Amino acid sequence: MDLWYTEKHSDNVGITLKVTRSLFSGASEYQQLDIVETAEYGRMMLLDGLVMLTERDEFIYHEMIVHPALFTHPAAKKVLVIGGGDGGTIREIVKHPQVEQAVLCEIDGLVVEKSIELLPTVASAIDGSNPRVKLHIDDGLAYIRAHQNEFDVILVDSTDPIGPAVGLFEEDFYRLVFAALKDDGIMVAQSESPFYHSNIQRDMYAALRRVFPIVEMYQAFIPTYPSGLWSFACASKRWHPVTDFDRARAAGRDFTTRYYNEDLHRGAFMLPTFARENIAP
Amino acid sequence: MDLWYTEKHSDNVGITLKVTRSLFSGASEYQQLDIVETAEYGRMMLLDGLVMLTERDEFIYHEMIVHPALFTHPAAKKVLVIGGGDGGTIREIVKHPQVEQAVLCEIDGLVVEKSIELLPTVASAIDGSNPRVKLHIDDGLAYIRAHQNEFDVILVDSTDPIGPAVGLFEEDFYRLVFAALKDDGIMVAQSESPFYHSNIQRDMYAALRRVFPIVEMYQAFIPTYPSGLWSFACASKRWHPVTDFDRARAAGRDFTTRYYNEDLHRGAFMLPTFARENIAP
Repeated sequence: MDLWYTEKHSDNVGITLKVTRSLFSGASEYQQLDIVETAEYGRMMLLDGLVMLTERDEFIYHEMIVHPALFTHPAAKKVLVIGGGDGGTIREIVKHPQVEQAVLCEIDGLVVEKSIELLPTVASAIDGSNPRVKLHIDDGLAYIRAHQNEFDVILVDSTDPIGPAVGLFEEDFYRLVFAALKDDGIMVAQSESPFYHSNIQRDMYAALRRVFPIVEMYQAFIPTYPSGLWSFACASKRWHPVTDFDRARAAGRDFTTRYYNEDLHRGAFMLPTFARENIAP
Repeated sequence: MDLWYTEKHSDNVGITLKVTRSLFSGASEYQQLDIVETAEYGRMMLLDGLVMLTERDEFIYHEMIVHPALFTHPAAKKVLVIGGGDGGTIREIVKHPQVEQAVLCEIDGLVVEKSIELLPTVASAIDGSNPRVKLHIDDGLAYIRAHQNEFDVILVDSTDPIGPAVGLFEEDFYRLVFAALKDDGIMVAQSESPFYHSNIQRDMYAALRRVFPIVEMYQAFIPTYPSGLWSFACASKRWHPVTDFDRARAAGRDFTTRYYNEDLHRGAFMLPTFARENIAP
């Protein structure tokens, strides 16, 4: 039997992938979690039926949510990830030698547990082996309310603004992030597809601009996400992700990247006209 | 009845689109042509069952195959398009006021005829109304063999390297293009997806480098193409598409673009590491 999984990106379009077997299917208190093996993209994690990551293309999302901020901030020592229970974002953070502590705050312990078990190349830094990594199974909002002026970088690695992540796209949350960051802190949040989610983006970037002095969108291409064009919001208190970017440090990095590089860093901020105009202040 | 069209991008993954009606289905001497109405992307043209364009996202491909070369060459007066029978590439070329003649050489007259009839916003410049446009229904190879030292810019707007377009990905063809260009001419050719077509790209860029002194890849995101990440090869005799790019002229253009802009022009050449390494000389 040929099994195909189709994720609809709207009522009228979707991606379809051949699935060779199911590795896990179950519900937590928060959401439905599925991990399947696909023929083209390796293992794939779905939350409430939406593709979160695949082994073949997760490197793009995870490199791009981490490295632009960590090569912009001159010396990020303490980094918080909200969401991101698969561990891929933490894996990229700990490649930076100056980072002393990487904290993961994920609401759903089942995502962490099953990622360690079934997606070991993604979860390699959250399996307990890395002393620089701290794990909190907690609501991100509650967590940052209890932490002020503490982090150099906060990365919001959330699902779409439905279900458990809806609060992570609101101005009140961005004010808590602002307070949890040090005076020269940087936040990066995944910010959906410029092609399909223009309304979400308009609201999100307007809210960010009411809180942070520097707000810039950058893009990455992620084949298994809706439209293939994805975006991230970089909201910063002092350092600008293009003009303060330390190109020499990025070029001299002592780890390999398959998507990010010191030239692409700048190029990622050069947006298509329709994306730029949609979020123009 | 709900009708869905699925294009497989490999044996194991594809895009699926809801189709509301068929507008044309027929075969020419060269290929099967279908034009359908989709619920999400407007009208869609397929050749041999592969998506060539949709009304909703064709602007990206057509702006990006044209404007980088036409804002790099200081004064392109005579431009040739090989393939591109839908007319979208010609539509973008004639937005440049200095262009005196835009020649379309398309092998399949049925594509031209049906585009004029059913895709009028795409074919608006090839319907006979524009005196700067010349139309040849002819084999591109035969046509350029008969033209030497004649064009400022040649754009190869081909299908994939199967079927009628296979010869347009070979070194012999690039040598003919080189000869058909003036001394400072530029060629741009669509060059497939860096994510799915790495073998095709390696051969194509190696062949181009044996013919042209300047060869650069640039990228654009096209949601209805395999993986969403698409690429173009810019092969040039004298002008470099980044260092000789006339940013001020691009910024001062007197027409609107929805994807291309003078910043994105540079960003498009800043490639993901895996794409850059795959075609490294």
